[in-house]
Amino acid sequence: MAAMAPLARNVLVTGSNRGIGLELVRQLVESPNPPEHVFATCRDLDGPRGKALQELAAKYSPVRLVQLDAVSLASVQAAVKEVETQLNGKGLNLLINNAGVNSQATLQSAQQEEMLSVFTTNVVGPIQVVKEFLPLLKKAALEAGKDGLSCSKAAIINISSKVGSIELCVKILKAPMYSYCASKAALNMVTRCMAEELKDAGILCTAIHPGWVKTDMGTEKAPLTVECSVQGILNVLASLSQATTGVFLDWEGKSLPW
Amino acid sequence: MAAMAPLARNVLVTGSNRGIGLELVRQLVESPNPPEHVFATCRDLDGPRGKALQELAAKYSPVRLVQLDAVSLASVQAAVKEVETQLNGKGLNLLINNAGVNSQATLQSAQQEEMLSVFTTNVVGPIQVVKEFLPLLKKAALEAGKDGLSCSKAAIINISSKVGSIELCVKILKAPMYSYCASKAALNMVTRCMAEELKDAGILCTAIHPGWVKTDMGTEKAPLTVECSVQGILNVLASLSQATTGVFLDWEGKSLPW
Repeated sequence: MAAMAPLARNVLVTGSNRGIGLELVRQLVESPNPPEHVFATCRDLDGPRGKALQELAAKYSPVRLVQLDAVSLASVQAAVKEVETQLNGKGLNLLINNAGVNSQATLQSAQQEEMLSVFTTNVVGPIQVVKEFLPLLKKAALEAGKDGLSCSKAAIINISSKVGSIELCVKILKAPMYSYCASKAALNMVTRCMAEELKDAGILCTAIHPGWVKTDMGTEKAPLTVECSVQGILNVLASLSQATTGVFLDWEGKSLPW
Repeated sequence: MAAMAPLARNVLVTGSNRGIGLELVRQLVESPNPPEHVFATCRDLDGPRGKALQELAAKYSPVRLVQLDAVSLASVQAAVKEVETQLNGKGLNLLINNAGVNSQATLQSAQQEEMLSVFTTNVVGPIQVVKEFLPLLKKAALEAGKDGLSCSKAAIINISSKVGSIELCVKILKAPMYSYCASKAALNMVTRCMAEELKDAGILCTAIHPGWVKTDMGTEKAPLTVECSVQGILNVLASLSQATTGVFLDWEGKSLPW
């Protein structure tokens, strides 16, 4: 294993203070071939919700903590500047849009403000992050100077959900969560559009369903541990290529319908 | 033809002051078997943008003009009261969510405010309209007192778009319109969820792609006249049943992938 290249040289993860985001950072830096930088971003670095991430950063030098609130353009732009400085001329190879919010709102309980808030976090946020980090991703693709697409070259991974599959959603949920499902279907559309638009620039873009995971969002009822989910996700990421840009895969690499 | 039953006894169309909405109202009331009521709704009934609809209402007695701004809950609730009074104890058989907004925003030009505005009009609006008119739709389904689903019994039709198909979008558009495509993918998800949730109440829900139509939204470059598109849509609506609830069809009845 020690001879293998890292999954990607420079990685950024949003929403990395807990759940899947935190575990992604942990497994990336604990791997035998860690990235040079893992930009671990979240809205509130300080305070109790950032504690686990602070501890990880103290232990592993590749972890760089960066404040980033994906729904605030000013925050995203400040994060880009900070990351750019730390990259010192290099590009960003892998951007994982993991930050997201759950919502149990049904048809009966859905309210306009709640729907907009879920859409903002789960769709507008990732678009804004990609837009602003695009120059650094393009730089990484140019640096690689080879054909094909991969996470080690330049890639955007959008953490989606199986219940964002229009085909599968109603087979999984008894009472559909309108805001959440609609936001993830919209994110899948965005993923597909980005994949098409950015492939010629050498950037891969794929949507990943992490499974139903024991996290704050997934609750204790979930069947899958976060360790197992993230192990699967990182294996899948390592396998991605031009053949799997613009698709929707689960944490085991199985293809999901839109 | 005169012996045939109308498509539906009581119909409501949103965004009916122009384009596809206006033509839907026109063809419904000009048919040999017009509905009893066609509630033609739009945001601004008065003023120049409501003129064609005003003329139609003056000519055909089934046309009832109702102010309805789908993104304003107060406006939707006021419209429900007005429609309920005019229905005088009867239910609403067919609700056509036609109001929508276009957006050419690409990844480069997409802005947070614009994305939220498109999402509000194209997704939150239809959800809000369905939520508030649901009692009248359920009443119509109960009145029918027969098995199966149809537009003559109780139905919700969401006017979507082929570019809201995650599968087809990137094959159709050179530069994806992120906000518009994502909003229509989200609306398709909402359609599918509503179909599943409301089938036991006797309510059908289907998404329809009207074709690329010569309207203010579609521009003069579009290949299809609004007359032809709406003729097709009304034929498709007449054919819908429990077998076609929760699906995505074009104006000719062809099935589209999500």
